[in-house]
Amino acid sequence: MNSSIVRYTLGQVLKIEAALLLLPCIVALIYMESHGKHFLLVSAICFLLGLLMTYSKPASKVFYLKEGCIITSLSWIFLSFFGCLPFYFSGEIPSFTNALFETISGFTTTGASILSEVESLSKCITFWRCFTHWIGGMGVLVFLLAIIPIGGGSQINIMKAESPGPSVGKLVPQIRSTARILYLIYLVLTLVEIAFLVCGDMPLFDSICTATATAGTGGFGIKNDSFTSYSPYLQWVVTVFMILFGVNFNAYYLLLYKQFRKAFSMEEVIHYFAIIIIAVVIIFTRLLPRYEYIGDAFRDTAFQVASIITTTGFSSVNFDKWPAVCQTVLVFLMFVGACAGSTGGGIKVSRLIILRKTIIKEMDSYIHPKSIKKIKMDDKPIEHEVLRATNVYFITFVLIFSVSVLLVAIDGRGLVTNFTAVAATINNIGPGLSQVGPTQNFDHFSTLSKYVLMFDMIAGRLELFPLLMLFHPKLWKEMFIHYTHRPKL
Amino acid sequence: MNSSIVRYTLGQVLKIEAALLLLPCIVALIYMESHGKHFLLVSAICFLLGLLMTYSKPASKVFYLKEGCIITSLSWIFLSFFGCLPFYFSGEIPSFTNALFETISGFTTTGASILSEVESLSKCITFWRCFTHWIGGMGVLVFLLAIIPIGGGSQINIMKAESPGPSVGKLVPQIRSTARILYLIYLVLTLVEIAFLVCGDMPLFDSICTATATAGTGGFGIKNDSFTSYSPYLQWVVTVFMILFGVNFNAYYLLLYKQFRKAFSMEEVIHYFAIIIIAVVIIFTRLLPRYEYIGDAFRDTAFQVASIITTTGFSSVNFDKWPAVCQTVLVFLMFVGACAGSTGGGIKVSRLIILRKTIIKEMDSYIHPKSIKKIKMDDKPIEHEVLRATNVYFITFVLIFSVSVLLVAIDGRGLVTNFTAVAATINNIGPGLSQVGPTQNFDHFSTLSKYVLMFDMIAGRLELFPLLMLFHPKLWKEMFIHYTHRPKL
Repeated sequence: MNSSIVRYTLGQVLKIEAALLLLPCIVALIYMESHGKHFLLVSAICFLLGLLMTYSKPASKVFYLKEGCIITSLSWIFLSFFGCLPFYFSGEIPSFTNALFETISGFTTTGASILSEVESLSKCITFWRCFTHWIGGMGVLVFLLAIIPIGGGSQINIMKAESPGPSVGKLVPQIRSTARILYLIYLVLTLVEIAFLVCGDMPLFDSICTATATAGTGGFGIKNDSFTSYSPYLQWVVTVFMILFGVNFNAYYLLLYKQFRKAFSMEEVIHYFAIIIIAVVIIFTRLLPRYEYIGDAFRDTAFQVASIITTTGFSSVNFDKWPAVCQTVLVFLMFVGACAGSTGGGIKVSRLIILRKTIIKEMDSYIHPKSIKKIKMDDKPIEHEVLRATNVYFITFVLIFSVSVLLVAIDGRGLVTNFTAVAATINNIGPGLSQVGPTQNFDHFSTLSKYVLMFDMIAGRLELFPLLMLFHPKLWKEMFIHYTHRPKL
Repeated sequence: MNSSIVRYTLGQVLKIEAALLLLPCIVALIYMESHGKHFLLVSAICFLLGLLMTYSKPASKVFYLKEGCIITSLSWIFLSFFGCLPFYFSGEIPSFTNALFETISGFTTTGASILSEVESLSKCITFWRCFTHWIGGMGVLVFLLAIIPIGGGSQINIMKAESPGPSVGKLVPQIRSTARILYLIYLVLTLVEIAFLVCGDMPLFDSICTATATAGTGGFGIKNDSFTSYSPYLQWVVTVFMILFGVNFNAYYLLLYKQFRKAFSMEEVIHYFAIIIIAVVIIFTRLLPRYEYIGDAFRDTAFQVASIITTTGFSSVNFDKWPAVCQTVLVFLMFVGACAGSTGGGIKVSRLIILRKTIIKEMDSYIHPKSIKKIKMDDKPIEHEVLRATNVYFITFVLIFSVSVLLVAIDGRGLVTNFTAVAATINNIGPGLSQVGPTQNFDHFSTLSKYVLMFDMIAGRLELFPLLMLFHPKLWKEMFIHYTHRPKL
């Protein structure tokens, strides 16, 4: 175990957080808010700690998947811990557990809130709350890779641990360039959304907050009623951008390099749009009788479908009051999630495609037991390793999900609340149904449940294994042996 | 595709059904009931049809897994179709869909009923209703294997398709002997239960019906309130026997041959009892404050836990009114199910053990990527094929489950009702929660939902793939090619 590289990288992450915390300071300066000082304080703490941890360079820069996992999960825990301090110090969220919950919900792009009143928050706090989505959406370590050379070809192990999807999409041979291209696409799309929102008469500050929350498919709203009171134009803009941020970023990369045919024939993207269309059709036909204007029914349907499948979690209507079929479709979309390689959560469309093909292959094997046909995606055979990992991911997902529902049930709430609360957090969505519906919040849960849900949010964002590894006794045993048997210098 | 063996075996199954249908005729004779004639009529139809189908012997007795699957799933469909006719002809269940639902629920040992009033049924109908559980519990094809020599060594493909669990437990090298030993253990245990019930002053007829329903882990009751009004002694007898019928029958085989150490160290059986104890402890401690006597709380807890984990589905109390944690534990047990190689349904304890070990192995592989340690069970390495099949089974299970919930949701019922209705049928349990709780029934569902649930019951009993194969286009294509390209005689 190369623990010095773990320490070193965590230090770098803290330095980045120190820099990021200066942005809300600027907001505080512009709006003359006193809470700016809390951000400055935490920024200073992060910077000093980061400096300490990066003081001595790591002996070796080579590391493997286990270190990649540890770096990633600890980074996210550090990030959340320090990121929550401004909420706590400023007193805007007086309970530490709640502040941590809100921050983890932000970084993991979940958007589940413990606040019932968000309009009275100060501007710098509101900005930080939405901006955590933007950082978490593409991943802080991907950001790190984009700006700092770690070298040694080991960075793929970080990218593997932090990036969503069954396999890592290296766009170009160099990890660093891949990370840069991803962040560039991300930034440009966000800026375009801000422009569209400003055109719809949304104030610039609100536009920035909304766009960062959409880009990360996060879902923290700046209004108490999320998107209900916004104009149809603004709702449509957000609908379109939610869908765009749920697309596999490889598609944008291909578009950027004018490989249109390849971009439009990506199996995952086609399925993603097909699922959206099917869901919209089912829900729309059911909702129609309840509306006076077809346009309203269509907009509400499209907004909610886009919001849930991309795991953003905004709402423009209280879907907790929708008919059972519509709710069931939404619960489904919660698990489907967006494309791999997007900022969305959930199981991911590509994984579901792989699972479907696995089942068909199994059935074929009943007819031709000796056939050795390989499962293909985009006309390329999928490696056995990816197939196996997808199966194990799915199994682990269901088991973590089940145990979480059991633990949350101790609070004594109904099955729908517990089920959708876990679904909404492990899939990084935000709102669920019943007592965690779009007009409700997560404050009423016990501390135990809140920590379970926090675990689920990080597990969901990092796709289970990196976080699970922290709880694997063998890893700690190895670390222990490493330290006790270290040759004396 | 060897379609003549399919026809021939189906004919044999019909002949067996003809014989089995004579049993309720005897009951009708004893109690002088006129409904006996309907059983006689259907028995005659089955016999004649069976005779026709077995008139010409199959050209080749060799067949493969695909034929095994087709034989098994078609057998169960035939069995259910003809088995439901007496209910329908006698007018005791006037709707054909309902009669079919009730029969499939019987043969698959589910025990989900569309009847609200069962005490007014005639004796022969009551007997047939409970007896279907007994036939379905061990499997009609296993029975066929026990009595008729099919030869050719291909029978393992039938046993594979019909027997529950990740791998087929051939107890002895000869399939036929294995099938006989299984049925012997099954019969003896049933007779012992009847004796115990009679000792508790239950009338002989009631004892026989109850014992057959317990043995198959079915759950059709002969009282409207299931087991609520029976004496504590009778409730305890049934609790113990439900648990016994959920044990892997291999354990009994080992006990029979005095291999006590091996029997008591079976990993699956140990886990099975551990899960029961944990569930009882959680529910018992939560229920205690609601009871005056500790003994009552303990008995009610043990009865319900045993009933659900073994997927029997009797109830001695309305657990739909239990606290949320208790209900959540029960919903868990619904999916866990009993041991492989028992008469119970669900995912099976051994599969969950394999899945757990798969996850741990995955985590180990993060630390030592090149390790090639094999997953073991009872100190024997599990074949790769079994592991893969277990993963695929689990994935398919979750997908079928999800689609079913979606289809049932069209009826517009609540999420808990839909979720537990599917859980209770695909796991072959019987009652769920809310509108399918222990005091409710399944009559209120639409015809579409009923057929979805019937599909789930058979899919659950045959462990998915044999039934799914019927819907695989490639199989029909092959059958079509076979017939159109047959050499002219």
